[in-house]
Amino acid sequence: MDYSKEALRLHKEWNGKLETVPKMKIENKDDLSVAYTPGVAAPCLAIKNDPKMSYVYTGRKHTVAVVTDGSAILGLGNIGPEAGMPVMEGKCVLFKAMAGLDAVPIALATQDTDELVDTIARLEPSFGGINLEDIAAPRCFEVEKRLQERMNIPVFHDDQHGTAIVVCSALVNALRVVHKTNPTIVINGAGSAGCAIADLILRMELGQVILVDRAGILTPDMDLTSGQRNLIDRLNPEHKTGTLADALKGADVFVGVSAGHIVSQAMIASMNQDAIVFPMANPVPEIEPDEASAAGARIVGTGRSDHANQINNLLAFPGIFKGALEAEATCINYEMQIAAVYAIASMVPEDELNETNIIVSALQPGVSDVVAQAVADAARKTGVIRKWE
Amino acid sequence: MDYSKEALRLHKEWNGKLETVPKMKIENKDDLSVAYTPGVAAPCLAIKNDPKMSYVYTGRKHTVAVVTDGSAILGLGNIGPEAGMPVMEGKCVLFKAMAGLDAVPIALATQDTDELVDTIARLEPSFGGINLEDIAAPRCFEVEKRLQERMNIPVFHDDQHGTAIVVCSALVNALRVVHKTNPTIVINGAGSAGCAIADLILRMELGQVILVDRAGILTPDMDLTSGQRNLIDRLNPEHKTGTLADALKGADVFVGVSAGHIVSQAMIASMNQDAIVFPMANPVPEIEPDEASAAGARIVGTGRSDHANQINNLLAFPGIFKGALEAEATCINYEMQIAAVYAIASMVPEDELNETNIIVSALQPGVSDVVAQAVADAARKTGVIRKWE
Repeated sequence: MDYSKEALRLHKEWNGKLETVPKMKIENKDDLSVAYTPGVAAPCLAIKNDPKMSYVYTGRKHTVAVVTDGSAILGLGNIGPEAGMPVMEGKCVLFKAMAGLDAVPIALATQDTDELVDTIARLEPSFGGINLEDIAAPRCFEVEKRLQERMNIPVFHDDQHGTAIVVCSALVNALRVVHKTNPTIVINGAGSAGCAIADLILRMELGQVILVDRAGILTPDMDLTSGQRNLIDRLNPEHKTGTLADALKGADVFVGVSAGHIVSQAMIASMNQDAIVFPMANPVPEIEPDEASAAGARIVGTGRSDHANQINNLLAFPGIFKGALEAEATCINYEMQIAAVYAIASMVPEDELNETNIIVSALQPGVSDVVAQAVADAARKTGVIRKWE
Repeated sequence: MDYSKEALRLHKEWNGKLETVPKMKIENKDDLSVAYTPGVAAPCLAIKNDPKMSYVYTGRKHTVAVVTDGSAILGLGNIGPEAGMPVMEGKCVLFKAMAGLDAVPIALATQDTDELVDTIARLEPSFGGINLEDIAAPRCFEVEKRLQERMNIPVFHDDQHGTAIVVCSALVNALRVVHKTNPTIVINGAGSAGCAIADLILRMELGQVILVDRAGILTPDMDLTSGQRNLIDRLNPEHKTGTLADALKGADVFVGVSAGHIVSQAMIASMNQDAIVFPMANPVPEIEPDEASAAGARIVGTGRSDHANQINNLLAFPGIFKGALEAEATCINYEMQIAAVYAIASMVPEDELNETNIIVSALQPGVSDVVAQAVADAARKTGVIRKWE
């Protein structure tokens, strides 16, 4: 199927992928008087008198805003908020299809950090959570951090943490297949996703991490972004320097969130035995999966659906928000994220775990429920539950 | 039926009155690849290359944001954005039920004019129109005016203009029943609705207007709001002064958007013969309809559904937005509003027009289509159609 052609045809037919549907009929005066005036005054006053009733009498508890500034839409770059809307709508479709959550696509006409923070913070009364989407690094780090400090509902930049969570799920299972502990993990691409993956791997103590960007292996003397600076002291304990090729020599794991076809078979061959290779650039991976296998990689996972081991954050974000909203969590902390990592990893039964089956299909039914349960439990355990005055 | 009790019960059961529903299934990789990545990149790029495709490939053309700051919710006052959400959700239900439009309820956590303007303006890429709702006067005047200057999509404060439009529809028909031209019209309540009604009556040249507030008949020497100042030179050509009772002596029409039971039968009796009385305060009208009739009013209309001649802005806003969005109008100008007035008035067939039938039921099928057609025609005729660079 020519996805581009079919997408254009169907997007025109759909004219927007979402519909806002009332849960009740409005056919007579009684319907109107209960759903609207005068009856609606009663739930309004109930919320005024007890703010937590906002989660009972309105849709907040199952409603997420999917918010972008259009600055980093897919791999297309800064195409602007209007052009980013089809992706936001698509994300909202997935929230509903995967987790039954209602989601509202919001593309904002600003790319200024202060304005984004102020605008998104003011949306709080209408939503149970904020999914930040496709906001360029390094702005995304500051926007997310400031919103998390300011808002009482979860704020989650999926391009960072959703990606990190599914990569870690795949990595946990892959390391079990190859029976390795404390591997050396090379991540290529030190933008929002790369930094978040490095951070979560280190918090989970899955191995040591070398982070590589266009200028080569990141070292403290470089001109680093805030996201990179927050990591640099925890990276690269053996103080390697040089290129991606230098980093990969003797490494156990490669994670690519960079650009197509920039890893050679020689680089893969230079890795340690039983190499784990996740070339996740989309649509063109850092190295074609077949070439990576031929060069000696034992486990290969990509972002693509036409190969084994698709590492897709669709496995993470629906269940994470479902669990966070269910628990009325005020944030999505690392304990909740790590709970999601292991919940996703656990979806592959022990006796089915092997080189070509380290992670379940993105469309496997039931994933979001398992993830939601684990995330809600972690929220309750760590006490990040909304408290009302 | 006890609407309050039933509303509390059902609002709890509904847990939010709206659902966001995808227009397609996501059951296999092809579904995912067309509605989301990689296919979705094609409509994104098509919009980037030609911004008007935003109205083809996303839902903007039929999507309205219903936005409040929670400062004037129904007659309940400044109960805050969270407590205002049930009304916003209800309004969105009505947009869908009456006109098939998708609407998103947004209650903002600020009541600062600058912040409201900045925040709402930045929502533009996601929506086809902005329905401002239940924002207190005089802030609502400035918020609306500044947004209209700044945004390229229609911005419409329904509490002002929606109310003005249905009142004028009822008035046009009532004046035909009593065969009066150039009546003297007393409006009591000089907030957002009262000012908008006065303004539209004057623009339509339906009669002369005396605007009355708590301090009595408005005169230029009073401390006036910006909305009142914009009107004052056009009001009260006979320079009357005094109380509401003074204003009503010899008047032809009373329109109340104030408070319950503040008009006496003596005041009605002091009006001109064939008096038209619209005591629209809700839920308790300025004078009970039966008392007004007994005191000599020939035509009585209220905001209540349990009396004849219910003057409900539900007749106006769904069709107005439907027409404006259909025409891709950049605003809802007075020509479009006046077209809506006559379209609503025309829904009562000539031979059915009488004292107790000056306006159709709020739930009469087909109203929004007739209004939409008239509004879209007026938009095209006045040339306020979005032009793309």
